[in-house]
Amino acid sequence: MATKAFAIIAGVGPGTGASVARRFAKSYSVVLLSRNPANFEPVVQEINSSGGHAVGISTDLSDSTSVKNAFEKISQQFADSALAAAVFNPAGGFVKKPFLELTEEEFAGGLDGQAKGGFNLAKNALPLLLQAKGLGYPPTLIFTGATASLKGSATFAAFASGKFALRALAQSLAREFGPQGVHVSHVIIDGVIDIPRTKGYQFEHPDAKLSPEAIADQYWHIHTQPRTTFAFEIDLRPYVEKW
Amino acid sequence: MATKAFAIIAGVGPGTGASVARRFAKSYSVVLLSRNPANFEPVVQEINSSGGHAVGISTDLSDSTSVKNAFEKISQQFADSALAAAVFNPAGGFVKKPFLELTEEEFAGGLDGQAKGGFNLAKNALPLLLQAKGLGYPPTLIFTGATASLKGSATFAAFASGKFALRALAQSLAREFGPQGVHVSHVIIDGVIDIPRTKGYQFEHPDAKLSPEAIADQYWHIHTQPRTTFAFEIDLRPYVEKW
Amino acid sequence: MATKAFAIIAGVGPGTGASVARRFAKSYSVVLLSRNPANFEPVVQEINSSGGHAVGISTDLSDSTSVKNAFEKISQQFADSALAAAVFNPAGGFVKKPFLELTEEEFAGGLDGQAKGGFNLAKNALPLLLQAKGLGYPPTLIFTGATASLKGSATFAAFASGKFALRALAQSLAREFGPQGVHVSHVIIDGVIDIPRTKGYQFEHPDAKLSPEAIADQYWHIHTQPRTTFAFEIDLRPYVEKW
Amino acid sequence: MATKAFAIIAGVGPGTGASVARRFAKSYSVVLLSRNPANFEPVVQEINSSGGHAVGISTDLSDSTSVKNAFEKISQQFADSALAAAVFNPAGGFVKKPFLELTEEEFAGGLDGQAKGGFNLAKNALPLLLQAKGLGYPPTLIFTGATASLKGSATFAAFASGKFALRALAQSLAREFGPQGVHVSHVIIDGVIDIPRTKGYQFEHPDAKLSPEAIADQYWHIHTQPRTTFAFEIDLRPYVEKW
Repeated sequence: MATKAFAIIAGVGPGTGASVARRFAKSYSVVLLSRNPANFEPVVQEINSSGGHAVGISTDLSDSTSVKNAFEKISQQFADSALAAAVFNPAGGFVKKPFLELTEEEFAGGLDGQAKGGFNLAKNALPLLLQAKGLGYPPTLIFTGATASLKGSATFAAFASGKFALRALAQSLAREFGPQGVHVSHVIIDGVIDIPRTKGYQFEHPDAKLSPEAIADQYWHIHTQPRTTFAFEIDLRPYVEKW
Repeated sequence: MATKAFAIIAGVGPGTGASVARRFAKSYSVVLLSRNPANFEPVVQEINSSGGHAVGISTDLSDSTSVKNAFEKISQQFADSALAAAVFNPAGGFVKKPFLELTEEEFAGGLDGQAKGGFNLAKNALPLLLQAKGLGYPPTLIFTGATASLKGSATFAAFASGKFALRALAQSLAREFGPQGVHVSHVIIDGVIDIPRTKGYQFEHPDAKLSPEAIADQYWHIHTQPRTTFAFEIDLRPYVEKW
Repeated sequence: MATKAFAIIAGVGPGTGASVARRFAKSYSVVLLSRNPANFEPVVQEINSSGGHAVGISTDLSDSTSVKNAFEKISQQFADSALAAAVFNPAGGFVKKPFLELTEEEFAGGLDGQAKGGFNLAKNALPLLLQAKGLGYPPTLIFTGATASLKGSATFAAFASGKFALRALAQSLAREFGPQGVHVSHVIIDGVIDIPRTKGYQFEHPDAKLSPEAIADQYWHIHTQPRTTFAFEIDLRPYVEKW
Repeated sequence: MATKAFAIIAGVGPGTGASVARRFAKSYSVVLLSRNPANFEPVVQEINSSGGHAVGISTDLSDSTSVKNAFEKISQQFADSALAAAVFNPAGGFVKKPFLELTEEEFAGGLDGQAKGGFNLAKNALPLLLQAKGLGYPPTLIFTGATASLKGSATFAAFASGKFALRALAQSLAREFGPQGVHVSHVIIDGVIDIPRTKGYQFEHPDAKLSPEAIADQYWHIHTQPRTTFAFEIDLRPYVEKW
């Protein structure tokens, strides 16, 4: 690839976001966005110390001003580079509660953390993706979904509302920007991801948790698809998952 | 029925809401909620002057304080009456725009008008519905969906996000409150409704628009289902509709 | 209604089929089709002895010649009458088995009992339904689905394949014949129906089984919908059902 | 990989099947099944002359005896080799006709070509796949779907019934054999594939057709997923496709 290119990973903790960042860092500079710098700093250091190029920017994805400020910094630092991919991998808005105990703020948190966060990233990333012609792969915008993207389970009203809304956004963007050459995709993560926080989860089988590296490989594969053959939606789950 | 009962219709304009109010007013007192009193006043007068009992309360469904105030008035006026049914039939949040022209406020409007409005109604109505045992029919909470509940079309990002989120909420409530005897349902209106605002819409066939009265009959039929046999989701469309 | 009208209930045992027959017999002559006359005879007698008009014809729904013969008899007996509704409520093809133990005949039985049966009924009934203009309600063709219409569970390969195929057929017919004024609908029965065969099924709640009468009421309601406002798909389940 | 391994491609014409065969032939011996040897012979020659190993067996996938015979030949020729992957990519059963013109044979053809064909392949391949532990990737069974797997369009009753049934089969097998370590997947091809037969199809955009090579890359990627992270369903379409 002649053009210099970078990717943005919005929502980075120790799980999928970090693995996606590492995977895309093999080919691109990567920008990691997360509210808490402690979430991206180890990954940024790891990538930079192993020959890659990573930058972290503290960003509240559900706050449009914060996202706008992050993109201003990005535009300065990557002025001569094209945005090859943006991945929305939000942590926010998860709550599991009987509905009558769910507060207004908690319900709004599901919508803000997922739908508004996705809106904010798309709003700022799409103009850059639309300009990113001529790279090796079509410019790509990937949203991370969950079981709750397809099913509103009891006590999941807040999280499922946010995840359903995010899926609607992804569908609408795929239909509008696909014909303009941008690959918009939605990946449904159906199961528990193997990250430090879930180390204690007990399952009958030792390998019953999704691998963040395998998720990242799937995201990268989506990015490499030619525009004749775009995947919109993919579900990923452990082999022993009930569904 | 020995017990006095009433129904709440949240979101009343000249279309579905008014017809649902008229239909439920044949059996119950009805409370009509709408931001603009001009929307419910003609229906309230019509019902009261034809032997029914209707009350209108100006309410902003997307504002939790406004909805709470409305329910305080309702509790006073219907202190000796049971809530038989609540219908969420929101007008708010519709916008159709290329995504890059969609403002943050317009996108939030889809979520507020649909998802937060549904949350506010459910939050206040469910405690009353849970107490409404012993009526002729199971207490019922119906949400009005749309084509955009199932499909995020290009340029519908805001509306579809709100409608997807509302469907998630409805599913979650059906799974939590069904086993407690409350019938939660979601009706997908797939087509143009025959109301004054759509009079000018031209179709090849003269009867290509949904009848608000037939929609209201369906809502009433849902309400009459015994708890052994609850419908959750129904799609309604004109016979000539492409889908 | 000036015109004399009749309905066909294809697939009649002691459950849904019998209740649908009784419900439609309140307004129409009814023809009951079932392979084993023992399945329809008690219902035919009951309807005829209580002032209705019912006829039973022994028919193998999965056998096109048998269905054709039944319709020849019907055409003779109801020469001056219009077909108002046909309901496909098949019993055939259910088997639950580990896939490697499933025989070729059992798998074919799911397709034959459901998909080919539905094809045979539709093929013979649609020409009559298309002529049945001018009745009080639009001519109607209803297919009975199941949980397995939407989900292919482990060990349900045969039944789910048949039920998925039947749903595809129903969708295709709704889209082709809806614009010609025929109401095609698909009802998903998600749970155990309260019939003699399931009397022994133990549930935590005494009323955890679907009522055949309530299902029949829903079928009748579908039939009464005006063509401006057709329901295609409805799911019915007991209030305590997990889904 | 220490173990010798092979893959079976069932349904090979000049499009997806041939490309999948070429892709899997980079790592495995491949067996190509097709009724007409003219369909697989050029691909078999091409693979063998470029350093790979391919065998073609004339097989009628909808005929259980024919499939059984093919697997007996396979067991002889690959006695010391493990089945790494089987791909069902059927050509049969497509017909587009007004329902009242559709013959019984044509409708049965949709079910036979898709559902029974899939059953026959699964029945014979799964015992081999279950034994194929210890290869580099989990043993894999992939079914090829289409737009008609999700939507029963007007005049597509036969094809959609077959494709819906095939999807039910795939779901059921994924849920039964996933926990046993076999990766079962269903890929929805939503659009026109760029093959000799579709060369004449005119589109507004020159690259509006799916690339068979990109589809094959996706199939291979599915095959490489670890069992912690299995994709069940993926939809692939050209960037300009309406959906």
